[in-house]
Amino acid sequence: MRGRLADRASYAAPVQIGEVMTGEAAGEVIASHHPGFALGDLVVGSRGWQSHCISAGDTLTKVSRDAPLQAFLGVLGMPGTTAYSGMKDIGQVKAGETVVISAASGAVGSVAGQIAKRAGARVVGIAGGPDKCLWVQETLRFDDCVDHRVPHLARALADACPNGIDVYFENVGGDVQNAVFGLLNPFARVIMCGMVAQYNESTMPAGPNLGFVVGKRVRIEGLIVSDKPERLAEWRALASPWVREGSLHYRETVVDGLENAPQALQMVLSGGNFGKMLVRIGADT
Amino acid sequence: MRGRLADRASYAAPVQIGEVMTGEAAGEVIASHHPGFALGDLVVGSRGWQSHCISAGDTLTKVSRDAPLQAFLGVLGMPGTTAYSGMKDIGQVKAGETVVISAASGAVGSVAGQIAKRAGARVVGIAGGPDKCLWVQETLRFDDCVDHRVPHLARALADACPNGIDVYFENVGGDVQNAVFGLLNPFARVIMCGMVAQYNESTMPAGPNLGFVVGKRVRIEGLIVSDKPERLAEWRALASPWVREGSLHYRETVVDGLENAPQALQMVLSGGNFGKMLVRIGADT
Repeated sequence: MRGRLADRASYAAPVQIGEVMTGEAAGEVIASHHPGFALGDLVVGSRGWQSHCISAGDTLTKVSRDAPLQAFLGVLGMPGTTAYSGMKDIGQVKAGETVVISAASGAVGSVAGQIAKRAGARVVGIAGGPDKCLWVQETLRFDDCVDHRVPHLARALADACPNGIDVYFENVGGDVQNAVFGLLNPFARVIMCGMVAQYNESTMPAGPNLGFVVGKRVRIEGLIVSDKPERLAEWRALASPWVREGSLHYRETVVDGLENAPQALQMVLSGGNFGKMLVRIGADT
Repeated sequence: MRGRLADRASYAAPVQIGEVMTGEAAGEVIASHHPGFALGDLVVGSRGWQSHCISAGDTLTKVSRDAPLQAFLGVLGMPGTTAYSGMKDIGQVKAGETVVISAASGAVGSVAGQIAKRAGARVVGIAGGPDKCLWVQETLRFDDCVDHRVPHLARALADACPNGIDVYFENVGGDVQNAVFGLLNPFARVIMCGMVAQYNESTMPAGPNLGFVVGKRVRIEGLIVSDKPERLAEWRALASPWVREGSLHYRETVVDGLENAPQALQMVLSGGNFGKMLVRIGADT
């Protein structure tokens, strides 16, 4: 979303002045002339920041009532699928490896780390502040979680990763990236999913010297979830039972009212949210 | 070799004071008690900087007389195999793609580019000075070659790559890397083979901001040829006929005398060589 607000080249076209802002939405069908959708059906789709929408049906997906509707925007939606695709297509984590997840309490990071735990890895989160770190360790059951606000991040991370780092799920960039890159093991994989620390910068800061990539045969690869559309259905089939039984954990921050959506996006960029950021639009708006 | 001269962690252990300096060597058997090696056999192996060596035989490989002996140190040896493995295992170039090769007249780059030409790619070299650029275009038949000493490298490279860059074979680092990275296409592959521009630096310069890796789903991967030992025999079988028929081109710079080997290495680091750097040790030394 943040990338679409700047008039510069990206994998997604910028939103134009007067256009509806892009965003995933979930809701209920309140009128239908489409044989595939009935009154009361629950649907999700990339329908943007608006209270109501009209659809020909082709951009909406019906979802079950097995999980809370908003789960299809987070843990069972695009963020959860991003985590799954990153781990499957790039991370390829093996039991016993050390996996580090930045923005570990976020909608993507929390799922990525839980997938790595299920694969038998040692999982270390990086998150902002003691509340998030505590939740990552106690509820998500990561082996450790480092607060990126500590004065000596690189040292704290080294202490949490005594065997180095084999897989890194990158959501943040900046100082966190530098600290992790210094600890990567030979043949490490880096899933480049996002660099939220710099989305508000107008000039990009320098990055890490890449000499280590040669000697350590590191693989650094970018991930956009929509490149492999089949992963969404795969992930929903795999993870829906985990959500139902309560073994896959996730958190949400809910802001009320469409008019507060810009603030909600700003919260994501500053780390003010905790888990998936949602904007609730009442039936009466 | 340069990495082994510094007392710091690398994929290869440092050479110790008093040890023979590491290096690939080719020569003739002048005495043998080994049933597998006869007087006059030609052999290659990682035998270091020395005029004579004694071997139990397990670290030597007999080579044919189909190609000049020194070709097994260059085009048919470790550098040629590095180019082949990089293109096969990481580059995976397709016909019509644009491939950029830095240090294009070097032992690795010259082979990498010719492999890409055989795959039907548009191949653009980067080399130092007009002589090398001319050879890359006229003899190697690359589609273009940019002199990295021109004042506006990024613009010159953009002119040579009107459709962007799909595969980059990295041997250099520094300003050349920055210029190439700015032109990478979505789903580009970067073969990280070396960064010779910084091997003499004691503190590493900053690198590129990696935000583009996410949006463009770029894959950046390190390559060390010895990780896939089977590639050597594959490459020799594939390329020996090309060397014999003269369709795979290569150049050599030969320095005479073991005592000049340190200078020869310095020439490689400053770009003073042209093609594979060889040190000839006469039978009488």
